[in-house]
Amino acid sequence: MMNVFNSTINESTPPTIGILPSGPNNQITDIAGVSVGQVTLQEGSIQTGVTVITPHAGDIFTEKVAAGVSIINGFGKSIGLIQLEELGVIETPIALTNTFAVPIIAQAQIKQAIQQHPQIGREWATVNPLVLECNDGYLNDLHAFAIEEKHYHQAHALQSNHVQQGSVGAGRGMRSFGLKGGIGTASRYSHPDDKESRYLVGALVLSNFGSLPYLQIGDSPLGKIITQLEKQQEVSVDKGSIIIVLATDAPLDARQLKRLSLRAGAGLARTGSNYGHGSGDIAIAFSTTQRISQHKDTILSNPNTVHETVLNDLFNAAAEATEQAIINALWYATDVTGRDNQTIQSLLTKLKSLNLM
Amino acid sequence: MMNVFNSTINESTPPTIGILPSGPNNQITDIAGVSVGQVTLQEGSIQTGVTVITPHAGDIFTEKVAAGVSIINGFGKSIGLIQLEELGVIETPIALTNTFAVPIIAQAQIKQAIQQHPQIGREWATVNPLVLECNDGYLNDLHAFAIEEKHYHQAHALQSNHVQQGSVGAGRGMRSFGLKGGIGTASRYSHPDDKESRYLVGALVLSNFGSLPYLQIGDSPLGKIITQLEKQQEVSVDKGSIIIVLATDAPLDARQLKRLSLRAGAGLARTGSNYGHGSGDIAIAFSTTQRISQHKDTILSNPNTVHETVLNDLFNAAAEATEQAIINALWYATDVTGRDNQTIQSLLTKLKSLNLM
Amino acid sequence: MMNVFNSTINESTPPTIGILPSGPNNQITDIAGVSVGQVTLQEGSIQTGVTVITPHAGDIFTEKVAAGVSIINGFGKSIGLIQLEELGVIETPIALTNTFAVPIIAQAQIKQAIQQHPQIGREWATVNPLVLECNDGYLNDLHAFAIEEKHYHQAHALQSNHVQQGSVGAGRGMRSFGLKGGIGTASRYSHPDDKESRYLVGALVLSNFGSLPYLQIGDSPLGKIITQLEKQQEVSVDKGSIIIVLATDAPLDARQLKRLSLRAGAGLARTGSNYGHGSGDIAIAFSTTQRISQHKDTILSNPNTVHETVLNDLFNAAAEATEQAIINALWYATDVTGRDNQTIQSLLTKLKSLNLM
Amino acid sequence: MMNVFNSTINESTPPTIGILPSGPNNQITDIAGVSVGQVTLQEGSIQTGVTVITPHAGDIFTEKVAAGVSIINGFGKSIGLIQLEELGVIETPIALTNTFAVPIIAQAQIKQAIQQHPQIGREWATVNPLVLECNDGYLNDLHAFAIEEKHYHQAHALQSNHVQQGSVGAGRGMRSFGLKGGIGTASRYSHPDDKESRYLVGALVLSNFGSLPYLQIGDSPLGKIITQLEKQQEVSVDKGSIIIVLATDAPLDARQLKRLSLRAGAGLARTGSNYGHGSGDIAIAFSTTQRISQHKDTILSNPNTVHETVLNDLFNAAAEATEQAIINALWYATDVTGRDNQTIQSLLTKLKSLNLM
Repeated sequence: MMNVFNSTINESTPPTIGILPSGPNNQITDIAGVSVGQVTLQEGSIQTGVTVITPHAGDIFTEKVAAGVSIINGFGKSIGLIQLEELGVIETPIALTNTFAVPIIAQAQIKQAIQQHPQIGREWATVNPLVLECNDGYLNDLHAFAIEEKHYHQAHALQSNHVQQGSVGAGRGMRSFGLKGGIGTASRYSHPDDKESRYLVGALVLSNFGSLPYLQIGDSPLGKIITQLEKQQEVSVDKGSIIIVLATDAPLDARQLKRLSLRAGAGLARTGSNYGHGSGDIAIAFSTTQRISQHKDTILSNPNTVHETVLNDLFNAAAEATEQAIINALWYATDVTGRDNQTIQSLLTKLKSLNLM
Repeated sequence: MMNVFNSTINESTPPTIGILPSGPNNQITDIAGVSVGQVTLQEGSIQTGVTVITPHAGDIFTEKVAAGVSIINGFGKSIGLIQLEELGVIETPIALTNTFAVPIIAQAQIKQAIQQHPQIGREWATVNPLVLECNDGYLNDLHAFAIEEKHYHQAHALQSNHVQQGSVGAGRGMRSFGLKGGIGTASRYSHPDDKESRYLVGALVLSNFGSLPYLQIGDSPLGKIITQLEKQQEVSVDKGSIIIVLATDAPLDARQLKRLSLRAGAGLARTGSNYGHGSGDIAIAFSTTQRISQHKDTILSNPNTVHETVLNDLFNAAAEATEQAIINALWYATDVTGRDNQTIQSLLTKLKSLNLM
Repeated sequence: MMNVFNSTINESTPPTIGILPSGPNNQITDIAGVSVGQVTLQEGSIQTGVTVITPHAGDIFTEKVAAGVSIINGFGKSIGLIQLEELGVIETPIALTNTFAVPIIAQAQIKQAIQQHPQIGREWATVNPLVLECNDGYLNDLHAFAIEEKHYHQAHALQSNHVQQGSVGAGRGMRSFGLKGGIGTASRYSHPDDKESRYLVGALVLSNFGSLPYLQIGDSPLGKIITQLEKQQEVSVDKGSIIIVLATDAPLDARQLKRLSLRAGAGLARTGSNYGHGSGDIAIAFSTTQRISQHKDTILSNPNTVHETVLNDLFNAAAEATEQAIINALWYATDVTGRDNQTIQSLLTKLKSLNLM
Repeated sequence: MMNVFNSTINESTPPTIGILPSGPNNQITDIAGVSVGQVTLQEGSIQTGVTVITPHAGDIFTEKVAAGVSIINGFGKSIGLIQLEELGVIETPIALTNTFAVPIIAQAQIKQAIQQHPQIGREWATVNPLVLECNDGYLNDLHAFAIEEKHYHQAHALQSNHVQQGSVGAGRGMRSFGLKGGIGTASRYSHPDDKESRYLVGALVLSNFGSLPYLQIGDSPLGKIITQLEKQQEVSVDKGSIIIVLATDAPLDARQLKRLSLRAGAGLARTGSNYGHGSGDIAIAFSTTQRISQHKDTILSNPNTVHETVLNDLFNAAAEATEQAIINALWYATDVTGRDNQTIQSLLTKLKSLNLM
């Protein structure tokens, strides 16, 4: 058996990316207060779902979190990013789903917000829904519009601090490097050993991008190896998108979070992406420790934002966590059969079929 | 009677803004191929609607138009602008509605597109819905979610080259400078007399912004005059947003159209806006003569784009058409009573009540 | 004599713009700590200069100020804005000069910084010079490269809290609306009467833009009046640029200052600008009360940044101060004769010649 | 000897990156018409230089080339990018040099332009100099301001279609991954075998970034290997910048070139960059086949711009060419001793000293 990884690998543990230590569970939920809930629809030609990330356990609308966004490639149909960019805050949970379900999930978010605060749309300002998407149309029958408002509420209700990865939630029907993609998550400390002052950065990805020959896992050019073994001629086009959500406990303001979010693109590139023309590559980042009140007269007590030079360590953590989360999405994915009985193999299935594992 | 305008004015004709000549009908539909359809809901606490602008009579998805956008103030919940910015095209009609109806109208657009092209969401890429909004929650019961998918289809079916202005369509419940706002439109030639080589720029606004003391109509500081006569103490905050859509028959590429769209902000400022914090001020511009095929192998025959220096005249036309369209929205608006029996007076009602007209 | 202004006007007092009260001296130096120094070169075909704005009396490099920038129209050759945008700080005085003198003034700034801190370019990072410009080539012989490094140092040494306006400093050779432009300044409180919590916004402009028919001073369409009286046929193209520098004592972070800076564009538009193609229209804003240390371990004590909703009042102040500063530049300008014996009349000379004053 | 590369490597040939074929000479000058000239200063504590890239052999000012820019990390002091972004053209050769020499080179460019066209700064508009930089202050005595105007003219006069790589030109004093950096170049076809319709993308980098542990050459984690062998404790901070210039013969407009330029960031990331806080990472791209006349009435005959979907292949070529150019800069660099007798070893010296080569 050819050794495609430099280290010993077993099925239950994806290869470790980078040089920084991960947080306790190597998940975005390592950042205190962050929780994730998911609903998966998997029946016949319906292979899709909803993933919801909640920045803290309180009321997100009245106690917003500082946030930034990088549109790495804007081939995407998300809602909520214009206002996030202008005001530098997130005021709802972050929802991920398929491309055609953005509207119905946005509507669910609006209704949830006005149920919690009936002043919204009346004497208060409106609420800014935040829904990001990838296109799962190969495995999932998008024309069925299977996602309903209730699925958002279900996912939101299911939030926990353990994230299931792979072919689940919004990731159910996603495809990455011609293999099964989906949900992946990871976390990294900003410094290998400075335990006093280091921070934690977590990443969660909805991974649906990539052309197989470009797939790189750490030092292993797995895409090249597989395509050579399979004597594939056709280089599939990189389309389909990736959404990257970064959370950190470092006290960063919106501008700093925007800078942080761009570094997701470095981790993304190292897995083999060139930000394909048809791939909506969007990264958002938020800080759990920079909160902004809805109310003018409520002063929230936040720590000082970090000195700009501290960002460098956080940038490394953001890039590594992103890269690891993408690999994790591939690693934990399972084979899925969907629309028109089309099947996408998982990475592990592929490795085994080629006797590489 | 105090003369608040420098020229003689009558009810049926708004004051003329600027120094450039208007197109044949002084409407966005003066640009060949552009049509507008509107649906108005006006019953009790439901005072809202949908306005749809169609760039040309053909298939917008397969024959896209070049477009650009300026986010003057990003306090807004539109959908579709990220991709418009990245790819520089519009591929659906442009829909305007209230803030909470963005999702349902986006869903209607998606369904319309896949009905016309079932390949969308399958072998073709997805479609990018384009819905912009203002908040009509003072007059309209946003919590009722009165807008349905069918209203988009109705508005689209009603498209014509005559635009009704004032308290109609998406403008039904809008408020501007504390007076009744709504839909306004205008057009301007890029040059006063060079009939050979001049172009036409049209503007359509969904106007829902402004603080009364700042209202300026041409040379008349009407806001100051009214507030002094009424001895108003409180300066209402500028929130509520304006959407500005510019169309031109000049062959401009996406970058040039982005430049053009920003000049809407100059016209907007001259009516008395400082781009208020809570006002989502967004301008998009498209060219009817720069078309981009969905299909790689279909070469569309477009004229050469204009030399950059020609833009200067177009900038003036864009700013003047925008300013005129905003004044027209005020002028043609009628009093509207809506939610909780709240009423907003129109400008003309106000002028008459103060014996200024 | 035709009354072109709604209020009584005399030569020594420009018409008052807007509805907000000005600061004690109606200058950018009303903001505590801000000072301005200028050097004017005026001999034959050399009609140019340097204007330097210093954000506070301390060491700007080690105690930077938060800052933001809006590129309203990027036809300009400034240096330093890329890093200002990325890091959100200003770390040198702000220099204004003519287009071809940007390099020599940037070099003077670099040398000044390394003289004060020899670590720059060695163990510390480099310094980011910040020089903005307009093109005074009509009156000034740009090919002579008359500005030298010493002029920056002289202007810097002359800084005071009284700003001379009109045909001085960098404004010496500038032209605005076909009339003499130059340096103008003004200030506005963010609220008419809330003396406890209001803030002050100051503007200083280097004004070199505008096409005469569009000139508007408050409610007076002076450009139209003059062109009609003079029976001018030709509409001169708006090229030449304007630089707008805003200072505030409100504690704003970089993102908020970027938002503030854009509102300069609203004031600019109200004087008659449509952000002409060839006009480099750039606005920067800084806060004197949000300071950032060069050193990671030095914690500067800043007040909390303002709640986002407070920005609305500041936006009005920024727009009004800008508009007033532009009018002041015209009002205080004097006739200047320069290159090839070409002369530009001042606004007051023009008004008198037409018997309008 | 440990085999750190997967393929056999010899000193004269850097490892080959990626899967696309290179152009005839694997240099940016493979794109027809592009030439490069360099001047190197290397005496004692002066280790610096100038590199000039000329887009075509004609008059760049009157026949501009379409261009775009991505500010990947804006910690940089370049001049000319604001206008490049607004107008989408380059109108001078592109100059690279050290941080403190930007002003003097910009001045040289202005003088060159007005010598060629005395109308500049008079009846014509001004010229937009374009100078980008990295900080070579470790090896080069920046305080000496050794670069003079003449060095720009010398470099420009020396332009040829063969590019010398490594410790030359602007790259003389640069450092990358703690090793000797400098000038590197490469080219890639957009498609492996479609010889009819493929295009060529060339990259030239001024490489001065990177932290050693992150260095990756193709599949080889060389940085980790070296740091482990050397038992280095300290992770040096990534500061110092990289400038990436892309040229293509594909007919792309400014918006498309901006998209292309961002993909340089993907190649950059794959060598081990996370776009460090203190690293000014800037990529510009131009097309030799989309030319824009200075004169309104001169219609240049350009081919149609490519269909947007064609960009995907070009994105891959841009990323691979960039990655290869960065590796080439390391590979061709030689040891340099400069200021205070400080020496930076080249990669090859390091590999040999560790018996890895």
